[in-house]
Amino acid sequence: MPEIRKDPVFGRWVIIASERGLRPNEFRPGQGKDGYSCPFCPGHEELTPPTIYSLPAAGNWRLRVVSNKYPALEAGGSLEGRRDGIYDYMDGLGIHEVLIETPEHDRRLEDLSEEAVADVLRTFVLRVRDIKKDPGIKYVMIFKNHGRNAGASLVHPHSQLVGMPMAPLRVMQEIDGAKQYFSEHGTCVFCDVVKEETAFKKRVVAENADFLAVTPYASRFSFETWILPKKHASHFEEMPEAMAGALAGVLKTCLGKLSSSLSDLSYNLIVHTMPVQDAAAGHYHWHIEIMPKLTHVAGFEWGTGFYINTVAPEDAAEMLNAGKKFRL
Amino acid sequence: MPEIRKDPVFGRWVIIASERGLRPNEFRPGQGKDGYSCPFCPGHEELTPPTIYSLPAAGNWRLRVVSNKYPALEAGGSLEGRRDGIYDYMDGLGIHEVLIETPEHDRRLEDLSEEAVADVLRTFVLRVRDIKKDPGIKYVMIFKNHGRNAGASLVHPHSQLVGMPMAPLRVMQEIDGAKQYFSEHGTCVFCDVVKEETAFKKRVVAENADFLAVTPYASRFSFETWILPKKHASHFEEMPEAMAGALAGVLKTCLGKLSSSLSDLSYNLIVHTMPVQDAAAGHYHWHIEIMPKLTHVAGFEWGTGFYINTVAPEDAAEMLNAGKKFRL
Repeated sequence: MPEIRKDPVFGRWVIIASERGLRPNEFRPGQGKDGYSCPFCPGHEELTPPTIYSLPAAGNWRLRVVSNKYPALEAGGSLEGRRDGIYDYMDGLGIHEVLIETPEHDRRLEDLSEEAVADVLRTFVLRVRDIKKDPGIKYVMIFKNHGRNAGASLVHPHSQLVGMPMAPLRVMQEIDGAKQYFSEHGTCVFCDVVKEETAFKKRVVAENADFLAVTPYASRFSFETWILPKKHASHFEEMPEAMAGALAGVLKTCLGKLSSSLSDLSYNLIVHTMPVQDAAAGHYHWHIEIMPKLTHVAGFEWGTGFYINTVAPEDAAEMLNAGKKFRL
Repeated sequence: MPEIRKDPVFGRWVIIASERGLRPNEFRPGQGKDGYSCPFCPGHEELTPPTIYSLPAAGNWRLRVVSNKYPALEAGGSLEGRRDGIYDYMDGLGIHEVLIETPEHDRRLEDLSEEAVADVLRTFVLRVRDIKKDPGIKYVMIFKNHGRNAGASLVHPHSQLVGMPMAPLRVMQEIDGAKQYFSEHGTCVFCDVVKEETAFKKRVVAENADFLAVTPYASRFSFETWILPKKHASHFEEMPEAMAGALAGVLKTCLGKLSSSLSDLSYNLIVHTMPVQDAAAGHYHWHIEIMPKLTHVAGFEWGTGFYINTVAPEDAAEMLNAGKKFRL
């Protein structure tokens, strides 16, 4: 069972998950080579835990959700806080699922059809709606790691969902920041960003009737890209089914442009949304953040929490829209 | 001039420094190869800005401090906040120095003599004392990036100092956390950690009369190691000159053990200390954090601020002390 330990200074939680260290990693020397069986490929279903949800294709599946075999958090523990000397810890209680996005090992998400990407997004929505039926789950983090520099361990396209017994610190800091903006301005900061960026235009990467994608003003990472619904909504899982196609279109465009401009693209994609048991809020607006990983986060960033970005977001948007190759 | 932009939601500051993108990087394909001139090697002094401070050696120097040629922050701007639409920004004002730790290109810090490491530490102290004479500098961040995965761009051993016009968010969060612990317990949390770890022993990596090195209870990274002065002190730059040797000894031991257990070690080393213009405080205790970078920080960590660590710190300390090789 993983253990959640609390840093006594920062209040920061750390998950100590020794068994997760045993998971395969195709990016490590000597792994993922000849004779390696990808656990996410069709015909290898016995290498993963049983299917939780799937969409059928002729004689097979086109998308599959399973429990993570090497979970960061898992079911069955206790939520009770415990002491170890001067320190606090608790069981690493939660849910950790993997969404296998396609049966094809070497396809990238952006190369799937718009309909297949919409299926992935609709499945996120359905899984969150199902996971949140457990009142003990306060937050569901949806994310995707693509490529070695983004911490991916397997090549086969997949995303992950982690249900947690508490809303994480970083999520609450973001919601608190938005709440403070709302109390000062009387408007949602993300709605204001949509308005500002639509007018300014120089940071827009993709747009349709429902969604806007921009390189944000204070991008931490070069070519960082956010996708925001144009209409205010605080919970991702409340997205109407009909909007999944529009989101898929904008997501495909963003990832396609990033892949064209950046060689050997690695990225983290994160869905930012409200805690699942909280009521709809006027001050918070769900969105997707895509963080390309061109360089390694270094000591200055770790020490300060300040990020150094060597490509202004206006320049990044211009290169993405022109299909220009970026040379690091 | 770099620009500091504020994220309107998080309040997070980002430095947009386009010229810093032009710096050489020996870890990039095609760079650092034949015909490459290391700007930190003796005889190439004309490739760096002028020497700010140096220690002499027979016919040469044994340590040298220069301004960073590609600074994240630089002198000469204004501290005035400005507006760009709905966003806030200011000039990227500050000081960015590089300490070249040795004339030898391929030596690692831990391979230098204890006296040479003590010289590096004493130089940190002297540079901070000098930089803080400018009352506009509120914080001096001292850090070292070693190896590709830690974001280093040059191989030649060096550390960096960044003087900033404000105390960074992450530093203030740590100090606030320590302050809260102090108000609850009446003791310094770091003094309590020293006491607890000395008694528990299972996380101790190195120790002498003045310093204790441990793998902290809530280690974010596998093999993370902290060095704490045993006697309470809030400001690193107040360290008595006589203690530099003791700190050098413990630092050399820690880096040596990490290098033995971890192949191709990459790490970030960060000095955590109080803002330079603040008075000595009973609740905060300076220390050094060494964060080995074995894996890439992935989406879950970025989204939650929770870290997943697959090696318990007790196991890490045991391996380090036994000189056991860790296989990722």
